[in-house]
Amino acid sequence: MVDHSQLTEAEYLAQYNVQDFDAPLCTVDIVPFRFHDHRLQVLTCLRHQHPAKEQWALPGGYIDINQDNDLDTTAQRKLAAKIGTEAPYLEQVQTVGNQQRDPRGWSITVVYYALFPGSAANQTLLSDTRWLTLQGNTVGQPLAFDHNQLISVALERLQNKVQYTSLPVYLLPECFTLADISDVFLAILGKTPPMRSIRNRFLNEDLLEDSGEKRYGSNRPATLYRLKKTAAAQFYNRLYHTTQ
Amino acid sequence: MVDHSQLTEAEYLAQYNVQDFDAPLCTVDIVPFRFHDHRLQVLTCLRHQHPAKEQWALPGGYIDINQDNDLDTTAQRKLAAKIGTEAPYLEQVQTVGNQQRDPRGWSITVVYYALFPGSAANQTLLSDTRWLTLQGNTVGQPLAFDHNQLISVALERLQNKVQYTSLPVYLLPECFTLADISDVFLAILGKTPPMRSIRNRFLNEDLLEDSGEKRYGSNRPATLYRLKKTAAAQFYNRLYHTTQ
Repeated sequence: MVDHSQLTEAEYLAQYNVQDFDAPLCTVDIVPFRFHDHRLQVLTCLRHQHPAKEQWALPGGYIDINQDNDLDTTAQRKLAAKIGTEAPYLEQVQTVGNQQRDPRGWSITVVYYALFPGSAANQTLLSDTRWLTLQGNTVGQPLAFDHNQLISVALERLQNKVQYTSLPVYLLPECFTLADISDVFLAILGKTPPMRSIRNRFLNEDLLEDSGEKRYGSNRPATLYRLKKTAAAQFYNRLYHTTQ
Repeated sequence: MVDHSQLTEAEYLAQYNVQDFDAPLCTVDIVPFRFHDHRLQVLTCLRHQHPAKEQWALPGGYIDINQDNDLDTTAQRKLAAKIGTEAPYLEQVQTVGNQQRDPRGWSITVVYYALFPGSAANQTLLSDTRWLTLQGNTVGQPLAFDHNQLISVALERLQNKVQYTSLPVYLLPECFTLADISDVFLAILGKTPPMRSIRNRFLNEDLLEDSGEKRYGSNRPATLYRLKKTAAAQFYNRLYHTTQ
């Protein structure tokens, strides 16, 4: 071990090598959600490499320290590689790190979730990726590593967050009705706020605009809305009473 | 580069070396809050090593992959080394990772905050640690790396969370009055809910118990409560109207 106490900071940095130290593996994993056929689904990918080779897993992997500027960049790069497009909404959830989760050794993963409109994510599906429908608080089949648990952690965050944000719109196609928003609540929470509450919250001037189109069905024609180009995710200071 | 495609998983793991790969630095940093003299304070430590030598910084450092079982263990170990005791409340906030935050290279830090009662944390103060009072959304002096920003991120989480949890009690000494809880709200939020709301929320059978003692002052004697030994942090489904 070199005695560093006499070095200047410049000298210290010149001799510093991150690989001189025992360090954990460090990855980013993303839980990509889409709303498809009235249900919430998660994208999984077949692993072609050890460990957990031939098992299904969440998209993710190593940070490329030469290419990625920050952790969000890593997450979007991994998503684009699997889905063909970056996520319209991406949020970091939690970092899980312990001795047990990876057979290679002490491993950290920074867990994100991403919201995709069902349609867009369908066009570019690779043969080794698959959208799995949620059953309870994870998908209905065992995934590699602790990825079933990571889905549960992300889903819990999404379930909390839809109650005080405009997030449901990121799971819908470009044009949608208020009844579609209600369907998203139902898929995520198993219940939905009254249409009056949805209307009060989502029909505000900074979020949605009337597309000029209507959807015709068995009821009276429903207005099709779309997200304003300038709209950011909105946060509200009340939860819905009826979904708690 | 070895061709791994013909290896079994056991053979792959036997030859795997985490140090064969470019990886970011990986640390844990903790924002330790205490409530002292009616104000919220953060513990900082003088750095004795490069980089940022002789600057004040948050407690934290590397994961010890031979000793720590998980990330929470790392955080509590780092706190105990500086404060002499683990935190009664510890919560992971966010992981910050990018190319810019550390002169040694791409760096990730898993950020926690911890809540300490003012008194306990005072007894064991080392000469190279210092409690700094919050001014606005960080401490009033520049810290090493992005640590001023990390404090802001942790404070924002704490400010949100005190509005729907029992967290204020973790910043108080063993015995406290309802007025003390109100003082904690005031220090964290700059405003406090009505005493009626505090009473409704905190005086429930699973959280606090009457210590049997009273505090005597200029008003009528105030009941001193303490946290029940079995009490866990509580979550409520409404925010206070008056603190939003």
